[in-house]
Amino acid sequence: MASIARSSLRVRSVARLPAVRAMSTTRVLRADKPFFPEEPSGPKVVTAIPGPNNKKAAAELNEVFDVRSMNMLADYTKSVGNYIADLDGNVLLDVYAQIASIPVGYNNPHLLKAAASPQMANSLINRPALGNFPSADWASILNTGILKVAPKGLDQVFTAMAGSDANETAYKAAFMYYRQRERGGPEVEFSEEEIASTMNNQSPGSPQLSIMSFRSAFHGRLFGSLSTTRSKPIHKLDIPSFDWPQAPFPQLKYPLEEHAQENAAEEQRCLQEVERLIKEFHNPVAAVVVEPIQSEGGDNHASPAFFNGLREITKRHNVLFIVDEVQTGVGATGKFWAHDHWNLQTPPDIVTFSKKAQTAGYYYGNPALRPNKPYRQFNTWMGDPSRALIFRAIIEEIERLKLVENTAITGDYLYAGLERLSQQYPEHFQNLRGKGQGTFIAWDTPNRDEILVKAKSFGINIGGSGASAVRLRPMLIFQKHHADILLENLEKIIKQ
Amino acid sequence: MASIARSSLRVRSVARLPAVRAMSTTRVLRADKPFFPEEPSGPKVVTAIPGPNNKKAAAELNEVFDVRSMNMLADYTKSVGNYIADLDGNVLLDVYAQIASIPVGYNNPHLLKAAASPQMANSLINRPALGNFPSADWASILNTGILKVAPKGLDQVFTAMAGSDANETAYKAAFMYYRQRERGGPEVEFSEEEIASTMNNQSPGSPQLSIMSFRSAFHGRLFGSLSTTRSKPIHKLDIPSFDWPQAPFPQLKYPLEEHAQENAAEEQRCLQEVERLIKEFHNPVAAVVVEPIQSEGGDNHASPAFFNGLREITKRHNVLFIVDEVQTGVGATGKFWAHDHWNLQTPPDIVTFSKKAQTAGYYYGNPALRPNKPYRQFNTWMGDPSRALIFRAIIEEIERLKLVENTAITGDYLYAGLERLSQQYPEHFQNLRGKGQGTFIAWDTPNRDEILVKAKSFGINIGGSGASAVRLRPMLIFQKHHADILLENLEKIIKQ
Repeated sequence: MASIARSSLRVRSVARLPAVRAMSTTRVLRADKPFFPEEPSGPKVVTAIPGPNNKKAAAELNEVFDVRSMNMLADYTKSVGNYIADLDGNVLLDVYAQIASIPVGYNNPHLLKAAASPQMANSLINRPALGNFPSADWASILNTGILKVAPKGLDQVFTAMAGSDANETAYKAAFMYYRQRERGGPEVEFSEEEIASTMNNQSPGSPQLSIMSFRSAFHGRLFGSLSTTRSKPIHKLDIPSFDWPQAPFPQLKYPLEEHAQENAAEEQRCLQEVERLIKEFHNPVAAVVVEPIQSEGGDNHASPAFFNGLREITKRHNVLFIVDEVQTGVGATGKFWAHDHWNLQTPPDIVTFSKKAQTAGYYYGNPALRPNKPYRQFNTWMGDPSRALIFRAIIEEIERLKLVENTAITGDYLYAGLERLSQQYPEHFQNLRGKGQGTFIAWDTPNRDEILVKAKSFGINIGGSGASAVRLRPMLIFQKHHADILLENLEKIIKQ
Repeated sequence: MASIARSSLRVRSVARLPAVRAMSTTRVLRADKPFFPEEPSGPKVVTAIPGPNNKKAAAELNEVFDVRSMNMLADYTKSVGNYIADLDGNVLLDVYAQIASIPVGYNNPHLLKAAASPQMANSLINRPALGNFPSADWASILNTGILKVAPKGLDQVFTAMAGSDANETAYKAAFMYYRQRERGGPEVEFSEEEIASTMNNQSPGSPQLSIMSFRSAFHGRLFGSLSTTRSKPIHKLDIPSFDWPQAPFPQLKYPLEEHAQENAAEEQRCLQEVERLIKEFHNPVAAVVVEPIQSEGGDNHASPAFFNGLREITKRHNVLFIVDEVQTGVGATGKFWAHDHWNLQTPPDIVTFSKKAQTAGYYYGNPALRPNKPYRQFNTWMGDPSRALIFRAIIEEIERLKLVENTAITGDYLYAGLERLSQQYPEHFQNLRGKGQGTFIAWDTPNRDEILVKAKSFGINIGGSGASAVRLRPMLIFQKHHADILLENLEKIIKQ
């Protein structure tokens, strides 16, 4: 049993401890008070995964629902905190967390309270068309929830349902804003030519404007968002796309310390290409959309300098700067919003969110991003109050348990452990990245898909991103003792 | 007090009763047992609408949320059955029902039970990524809910969040299916050229295929669905669109009996144009999408013969036939699905749903509409089990109370009353339409927007569609005594 410093917030000192000794058993010393006292002390694997019950249930589900992307069936009544249960009695430490979308643990008691409240029941059975008939408490739900955590400088929200439509409604806002400026302001009426041509999907009414995104980006899978997604061919093949430009995203070399100059040059090259495309692309660019960390495309990072450069270029060219925080938002990087790491002088024009928020939408600050007339940015439901109530409870739980701070601290601890593993097993832990980014950590490994499958037999549910990255997306309640279990098992997996 | 036949299911005889006498007071004889005994006996209007509390709350909400499309703020704790309450003590008979999306009444007790169940709480706080980690009960939730009411011939579902993404995922399925056939079957691999070109949003990987829709159609507001929406310029202006074709939708003349030949010729003309576009449009047509009744675009109807013609043409040309039942589905036309009225010999290839289902998605039957590889039709949440549970409860309630039958009967009764009004006030009730289509009834009126506003002061919440139609979209629990109140007040409104 190793000596894990009991209450060390200074991660550096912990990082110097011998990792391998610290990971000799799943029953580790608990350095911190557990957030979920009723969690198991470690994973439990009692059958091959998938086991017999899972196989049977999957065959049944397959009759009516495509299960080829299925990872495993889960018993959410038996899942708790960081642990996900399957139908065969297996209980796995979940560092994938429903594709990075579970924030505060399975069966979180505070969320349960919100879910079982009369206000929730009322919102579920009397779902309003929010744009027409908002509920009396909608302003309060927004102000005590979604807007309480609005990014600095942004005080408005348009609510949506999931990441794709959050991004697409943001794009729509950008296009309307762009054309309004071209037209000469909000008071200038649409021309008859615009009105006639848009009914035929032709310009000028349906203008050939574009949203610029980056190589390897992921922004969703509907037609507009998919046109900005550049992660994998399988996401895009056979689906018509808009002729929108993609800029190169910096391909940084690791460890960062050893490639500082090279990486800075690479980022400059990408910024120059962004500016060139803004100036030259045949379909004028209304907005640039970027993830703080490219999360589906392989956990690709860039420096705060790069993002400050993007902000500067977009501002100078009157192009909106949309930050897609669907996967990075709500604490996972050790800040509430990942773009908080950049210290921007001017905030992004729009920030989109979903996943860990358990609802979706986009924040904005500039009142001119409200379209000049009603019903331009509109749909029947415009979000879902019941999901907004869940997000409010999530925010309360994050504040109560200081989960953003926890994620920063645990992330540093976890990163240090991974760094030790990467020194010991360099071939298995390549391009370790995410230092100082909470638990938003990844590395490349040669036989990635095999590792992900094998991990289940060690009681670890873990995901990949891009072609070769293992991505960690634990919940915000992931603590040092969970990190120890993860590190120990990662070593076992590669040693096998 | 008029003599409304007590238990007459034979609507014709009721229709011959003098309407005006039957509507002399809001406290009418109740011909049927009320579904909601605790409903008020009629609307109650105690202030101007919006009243002082509503104005104050709207100003507060406007700080953070665009309220220019707001109709009124509602108190959903005080709304019941067909009646919506505002913040000033006004209670309105609601025949708009959250843009046709409330099926079984405000604060329906059976829905409340489902909303307050442990299964609901569990699904709310442990939201799965359904494609990867479906819950153990997902197959059962589908089979006892969404799939129990699947349209004839369709036994699969892809779940979504709202009408727009239901349609867009259906379009994606159509494009993948089209290209798969062109490619030579599901086993044929993508070419290197396809793989490379799709990452640049270029064909052949991102092919220039199209979805055909109809003039005045509404299929949603995201980029793909908006490209098939042709309702109003304000829905489309400034948003880039795909170059997709639109066919004319029949413009029928009313009363139908007097224009049978003319209308049949009009439908033939439209069908010919559909076929011409399928053969000639420069971006090949993968699917035709159509609403059974164009619901946002002005309540435009066509005959079963027209839709049978569409099915025949699409089948002959290997083009998918997508029926958008987002607004017409779930009972409102007096059949569970509006396309049940057509008696098709071959079912639609895809039927999309949302609104009254309180969830969304598309049904299909052909297994080849499952893409040939996983992760092609995929997203993080792929719907929402908590919303699927609500739909299940809605289906149970529809069955328990025979609400589809109720809507057919009440609809005929209501239509007959409107027919009488249209004879008495022909200038105010033009082109009355929706006979035999349940309560899915509309008419044109010269000063429509004024009428809609005025209706509130008479205690009626009512909506419009297109440029000049008043559209009725009551809930499925709308009964004859509600119809009497509506008819009486409509007469008062136009008489004022």
